[in-house]
Amino acid sequence: MYVFDFSTGDGTNKDLLGGKGAGLATMTAIGLPVPPGFTLSTEACRRYLAEGEVPAVLWDEVRAARERLEAATGRRLGATGGPPLLLSVRSGAKFSMPGMMDTVLNLGINDEVVGPLADWAGDEHFAWDAYRRFVQTYAKVVLRVDDREFERILSDLRSARGVDDDASLTADDLEQATRRFQQVVAAADKEIPDDPDEQLRAAITAVFSSWTNRRARDYRRLNRIDDDLGTACNVQMMVFGDLGDDSGTGVCFTRDPATGEAVSYGDYLPNAQGEDVVAGIRNTLRLEDLAERHPEHHAHLVEVMGTLERHYSDMCDIEFTIERETLWILQTRVGKRTAQAAVRIAVEMANEWMIDRATALLRVEPNSLDAMLHPRIAEGIDIEPLTVGLDASPGAASGVAVFSADRAVEVKESGSDVVLVRWETNPDDIHGLAAAEGVLTSHGGKTSHAAVVARGMGKAAVTGAADIEVDEAAGRFSVGDVTVSAGDIITIDGGTGRVFLGELPLVDPEPSPELEILLGWADEVRRLGVRANADDGPSAEVARNWGAEGIGLARTEHMFMGDRLPVVRSIILSHEAEQALDELVKLQTDDFTELLTAMDGLPVIVRLLDPPLHEFLPDRIDLLLRRRDMAAGSDTTELDRMIDAVTRLDETNPMMGLRGVRLGVIHPELYQAQVRAAMEAVRRCIDAGGDPKLELMIPLVSHKDELTHVVELVQEIIDASGVRIPIPVGTMIEIPRAALQAAEIAAHADFFSFGTNDLTQMAYGISRDDAERAFLDQYVADGILPSNPFAHVDQTGVGRLVELATREGKASRPNLEIGVCGEHGGDPESIAFFHRMGLDYVSCSPPRVPIARLAAAHAALGESSDRSSI
Amino acid sequence: MYVFDFSTGDGTNKDLLGGKGAGLATMTAIGLPVPPGFTLSTEACRRYLAEGEVPAVLWDEVRAARERLEAATGRRLGATGGPPLLLSVRSGAKFSMPGMMDTVLNLGINDEVVGPLADWAGDEHFAWDAYRRFVQTYAKVVLRVDDREFERILSDLRSARGVDDDASLTADDLEQATRRFQQVVAAADKEIPDDPDEQLRAAITAVFSSWTNRRARDYRRLNRIDDDLGTACNVQMMVFGDLGDDSGTGVCFTRDPATGEAVSYGDYLPNAQGEDVVAGIRNTLRLEDLAERHPEHHAHLVEVMGTLERHYSDMCDIEFTIERETLWILQTRVGKRTAQAAVRIAVEMANEWMIDRATALLRVEPNSLDAMLHPRIAEGIDIEPLTVGLDASPGAASGVAVFSADRAVEVKESGSDVVLVRWETNPDDIHGLAAAEGVLTSHGGKTSHAAVVARGMGKAAVTGAADIEVDEAAGRFSVGDVTVSAGDIITIDGGTGRVFLGELPLVDPEPSPELEILLGWADEVRRLGVRANADDGPSAEVARNWGAEGIGLARTEHMFMGDRLPVVRSIILSHEAEQALDELVKLQTDDFTELLTAMDGLPVIVRLLDPPLHEFLPDRIDLLLRRRDMAAGSDTTELDRMIDAVTRLDETNPMMGLRGVRLGVIHPELYQAQVRAAMEAVRRCIDAGGDPKLELMIPLVSHKDELTHVVELVQEIIDASGVRIPIPVGTMIEIPRAALQAAEIAAHADFFSFGTNDLTQMAYGISRDDAERAFLDQYVADGILPSNPFAHVDQTGVGRLVELATREGKASRPNLEIGVCGEHGGDPESIAFFHRMGLDYVSCSPPRVPIARLAAAHAALGESSDRSSI
Repeated sequence: MYVFDFSTGDGTNKDLLGGKGAGLATMTAIGLPVPPGFTLSTEACRRYLAEGEVPAVLWDEVRAARERLEAATGRRLGATGGPPLLLSVRSGAKFSMPGMMDTVLNLGINDEVVGPLADWAGDEHFAWDAYRRFVQTYAKVVLRVDDREFERILSDLRSARGVDDDASLTADDLEQATRRFQQVVAAADKEIPDDPDEQLRAAITAVFSSWTNRRARDYRRLNRIDDDLGTACNVQMMVFGDLGDDSGTGVCFTRDPATGEAVSYGDYLPNAQGEDVVAGIRNTLRLEDLAERHPEHHAHLVEVMGTLERHYSDMCDIEFTIERETLWILQTRVGKRTAQAAVRIAVEMANEWMIDRATALLRVEPNSLDAMLHPRIAEGIDIEPLTVGLDASPGAASGVAVFSADRAVEVKESGSDVVLVRWETNPDDIHGLAAAEGVLTSHGGKTSHAAVVARGMGKAAVTGAADIEVDEAAGRFSVGDVTVSAGDIITIDGGTGRVFLGELPLVDPEPSPELEILLGWADEVRRLGVRANADDGPSAEVARNWGAEGIGLARTEHMFMGDRLPVVRSIILSHEAEQALDELVKLQTDDFTELLTAMDGLPVIVRLLDPPLHEFLPDRIDLLLRRRDMAAGSDTTELDRMIDAVTRLDETNPMMGLRGVRLGVIHPELYQAQVRAAMEAVRRCIDAGGDPKLELMIPLVSHKDELTHVVELVQEIIDASGVRIPIPVGTMIEIPRAALQAAEIAAHADFFSFGTNDLTQMAYGISRDDAERAFLDQYVADGILPSNPFAHVDQTGVGRLVELATREGKASRPNLEIGVCGEHGGDPESIAFFHRMGLDYVSCSPPRVPIARLAAAHAALGESSDRSSI
Repeated sequence: MYVFDFSTGDGTNKDLLGGKGAGLATMTAIGLPVPPGFTLSTEACRRYLAEGEVPAVLWDEVRAARERLEAATGRRLGATGGPPLLLSVRSGAKFSMPGMMDTVLNLGINDEVVGPLADWAGDEHFAWDAYRRFVQTYAKVVLRVDDREFERILSDLRSARGVDDDASLTADDLEQATRRFQQVVAAADKEIPDDPDEQLRAAITAVFSSWTNRRARDYRRLNRIDDDLGTACNVQMMVFGDLGDDSGTGVCFTRDPATGEAVSYGDYLPNAQGEDVVAGIRNTLRLEDLAERHPEHHAHLVEVMGTLERHYSDMCDIEFTIERETLWILQTRVGKRTAQAAVRIAVEMANEWMIDRATALLRVEPNSLDAMLHPRIAEGIDIEPLTVGLDASPGAASGVAVFSADRAVEVKESGSDVVLVRWETNPDDIHGLAAAEGVLTSHGGKTSHAAVVARGMGKAAVTGAADIEVDEAAGRFSVGDVTVSAGDIITIDGGTGRVFLGELPLVDPEPSPELEILLGWADEVRRLGVRANADDGPSAEVARNWGAEGIGLARTEHMFMGDRLPVVRSIILSHEAEQALDELVKLQTDDFTELLTAMDGLPVIVRLLDPPLHEFLPDRIDLLLRRRDMAAGSDTTELDRMIDAVTRLDETNPMMGLRGVRLGVIHPELYQAQVRAAMEAVRRCIDAGGDPKLELMIPLVSHKDELTHVVELVQEIIDASGVRIPIPVGTMIEIPRAALQAAEIAAHADFFSFGTNDLTQMAYGISRDDAERAFLDQYVADGILPSNPFAHVDQTGVGRLVELATREGKASRPNLEIGVCGEHGGDPESIAFFHRMGLDYVSCSPPRVPIARLAAAHAALGESSDRSSI
């Protein structure tokens, strides 16, 4: 069976009836005033798309349903005596795809029917308007006639009549429009059948076909909706809101979809059809106005809203039409809402006992919280962006464009907000990023240096804005023929990747007591711990305020930057720089003390130095050019020494080079200095009455013997420090080989932390520095990869390594603590995966801590978080 | 029990008795004239080393054995009446470690014994010489006294006497030497005990301790001998070859160890102890001379040689001493031999039915064949090398040093052999490598471009000679204060990494009919197929002559080099270079035709373009410097365009960048052109009556969908070509993710070929361009890694991916053919692993084909090839 009357369909079966069809069946079942009709199932659509024709029995079933409908309404399709039945034919997929597919209204009208319709309505104008609307839509949707001609005809008629809108045309005008439309159709060698049954069959197949049109496919790809689902098709008796000022049509929500406040909210347009509301030509009235004009309809509507909200236990979005004395409900669905509203509605409904807390948690998409936690561009701003880059770190920021980190600090100190604009950033720029409101780069992906650091600091970032040509030396950038110079103000939106000229009004995030409550509930159900990746005291404090239960990753390399760079360089240039090392230990001790103090009582995992040494030296090309330009006879000793060192350390593939534990093996003095500093910080914290919980982590291990070698080195210094509390020493699992050898490595590590960024790079053989620009973005756009594996962990490939290493690591050492500290630690879809893999915690950038808490709760509730549950 | 008399020990138990002890027990058992004695087992040594003292019962067992020895010989240790018993105390490990551990001779002598010894020998000189030798050795070995003082004393005595050698000193001189030696010992606050039992115990523990001395440990590391084995200790009655001209000592081989010819071969030194033969002070006589002087001893020795060779079924190395009327056999072992001799002996012994063919195959180390297949530096050349780099491609080469590929071609064409010297080579240098006899680079490891290409062409290569400073522009290189200019002649030895100034005499490899026979036997037993990595017709012919059963990897990138580079550049710089592509197709068609013709009837796997595009463009730094130096006002358009392109294509980590299948996705026109050319070549071969077996391989696949995407592209062109024979299309497995997803990928691939170079890079997270220099060499030297994973496949990590992909790939597609085409395909240890994993074939550089054939046979015979079986 392919056809189901609203009065008999199963309102819970969205798979078969689509969202709209299920809603109509439900509302019919609970006694709401729904215009009668029937639904052709998604199965019919799938068979039509697969086989190129509808199932043999379909038209018989449609005819029978049409006859039942005529019996129920007392009207007949194509009736020339008595009130004629007109139909709407609408798509309705399982997941809402608003406006993506086709609709035919007023179906059943023809030259014979238009007269009886006018008689029934007592309104010639209405009848001819219905006819011309039908011809126009049918021609466009079913016959694929170019509809610009129709607009031209209407425009001509309006000019002739000297009016602005179609409603002001006369019945004669509309008749003339209808006839001219029919001529256009004939000229295109097409024909609109007079037989209403024929019209119906053609409209149904057109609706089914529209599942595969270009914009529907694009929408599904963007929203990750399965192409194989198909759409249902709803055939329903037309009701008319355009029968005069006592009629009208509207949309309402059972709660405020912007704030979540428990007050109904809606728009109403008298003497109009639904499409007029959508078109936005006339200003709509508020529900309060309806209460004044038609108190009985308003009261009825309020009652319906209550019924529906109680039925769905959720905020509903309702379309209604008032046809003279009757209120009709045309559609309902669970309403879209802002993140803020979602949180408030979920918490309030749970407090009202409408839903349980688990349901409340699942009602809020973790990723949607981002919008609540960062400044955003004020709503209603409709300015064309200068360009669009990657949405690398959420939030909006306005400020003076500056082109160097030093300049960012200067301008910020002079009192102006700044946006740092760079080709790409590197660890040298940290102080500039700290001073800026946001950062804009023309290169680098969503895991580039700028992106990672900005997310860590909770700053806005747009990266990889490839249309931008940055001239850092000249202090300007250009997009096409627009040039922005240092000192000009720009605005960036890191949540969408948009870049604007000038200062746009920003809205700060509002505190949400409901969010605090919801996250508290999340903490009660989640099993995964949530820690933060934070490198300094202030970031750690931010993370703790957001609920982080420790630091899963403190990178120590920034401690080598800024003022300290000359010290670090002198160590790299001469291995025996004892004094320089002592200096560094002193400075790092302060860093670690700050970090441990901010996270007092909670674990703080310090990762020993990871990046290749040449990152601490100047750029090789710059040095070579400088050397070339030196005047004859000048002293080049120092420069040559630097060039030699940079050349010696230059690597073809630095990502796979001398970094991480390899540095610890080849230059043990660096790791020793870091551990000395960390242990001294622990001692200081203890002396100050604190409860420091330091853990040390060795990066980039690929073979157990390099781990044991360095662990021994580290342990010696721990032992020599005189500190008596246990200091766990663990390793990152970020090289595929380490995952494959997890059992052996676990024997020598107190804990594992998956570095899924590097693990993805190596397992996939893609460099995050280059891949997005070079091919990855195109791969995702072309559907060769389902998603960017740096955004969502690749569960079948990289994930298999995670699964294997977790299983074998825990088998080898049952109390092995396993977390993840890569970017994926803040991605809800990935968090659900890590939960299933049995990890102990995730660690993410501080602003994503609330998101991770909620995502971990979703995971524990057994829900996959990768799809909206709404 | 720790002590075994030679007459009761188990001669097959080398683990317990060591090689020497087992040989002595065997020879005693088969009735050869062995001086009696006993062996302390390796177990005693291991316990001594582990516990710091010998097992409690050991000295009791030694005393009992000494008493049995006295009873058997009728002599007594420390005897003052009657002939005294003197002992030798020698180490003897399971695997021969010649000269690495300690020995004490003439043990048992003291002030009381020296007189009776002189009486027994009738020779004062002999007795005092024995005494001074004992004191000298005991002081050095047991007491660790610096022995330079002893040499000075002997030197003084020789001067005083006006003679050149110690043998010409008088008995008085030797007595005086002994006394002075004793004073040196006393001055060092040490003492040599008079009690022979005490001497014996001290000598035994000294021998055990010598297992752990520095040179022994180094030797074991180099020869990959387990440090835990320990050594046995052999205590044996001294016999004397220095009792006059009727006595003597010598070494002989049952066959010629240099050529393998079945004639006995040896050295004999009259009136001497064994150490004098080793010292090489006096010229030795040949066995023929012994036959003349002492025909009865010679005949006896020949009989012994026959007995031993038959017993061991192998060529034996025998030490003997003639003590007046008696021939004594002191030691035997299976003799070391050259590769050529090993092959000849194995084949001839099998033909003589002494051994079976399996044993013959296992007698030859696959890697040793290298020395037979390439020119080498003539023996006896003892010149200090200028420097030593990496042994990157075997063989020796002499020629004029040149510093550019073009110059290499010019000089070669003028009639001189050349050695190309470069900082590093790149694909631009191919024609220079082809013209040169060998290549020397200061950078790059054993899998660098120069190394890989040289091995493929069978040319000598020394890479990564880090002491060398190459100034290509100036046409010279320097090592310390030695400068070598273009035009100077140098010699390199790619088998050892040595670099010499000047032309050294080279020996060409000699044809070996026995090798042909042996490899034929190998082909009969091996299960793995052996193919070659070859990129052009001549290489393919060489490979086929060496027995390759097809081409496992034909790289196509060199086809883009040389004359064709401008065409390729124009394609890269403008995507729509239709005409340039057509040109390229024409040229590549010739390449492919040549390759398919050379391998007619055998499979030829052509890998589509793999390297990143920027490899085809000039160096970025060069371009930037050139741009900087251009005169104001000159036209920079062309250069700027090139700089833009190079900058656009520049990648931070090119190894993980836009290459392989990613190129095929992003620039489909390149793959399409290659496939068109390959199909046209197939058509030509068929038209010429040939039997081309083309297969196409997609590199760097990490996700099944990128494979299916490109396979579709490729298949379209195959279908359009009109060629009707099947063209399998497969993929490389060289990205960890591909291995982890082998089942899914196998569904879309006709075959797999493991690219273990890249797989090692990614799985280990190490870049072969940088790693050796940066840390890998140090890792191996420090024992953090057991071996360089680019030389021998990492079985536990990378190997686990191979195992998993093979198992799951074959499960998904049972007829999936799986090979390996990385460098490991020519490494015997890796080949044994691939055999165990159930692969179908290995593919290696043409000169390693014979090695791979033999190694595959070893693998099939169930032997691990990673340890000498001798």
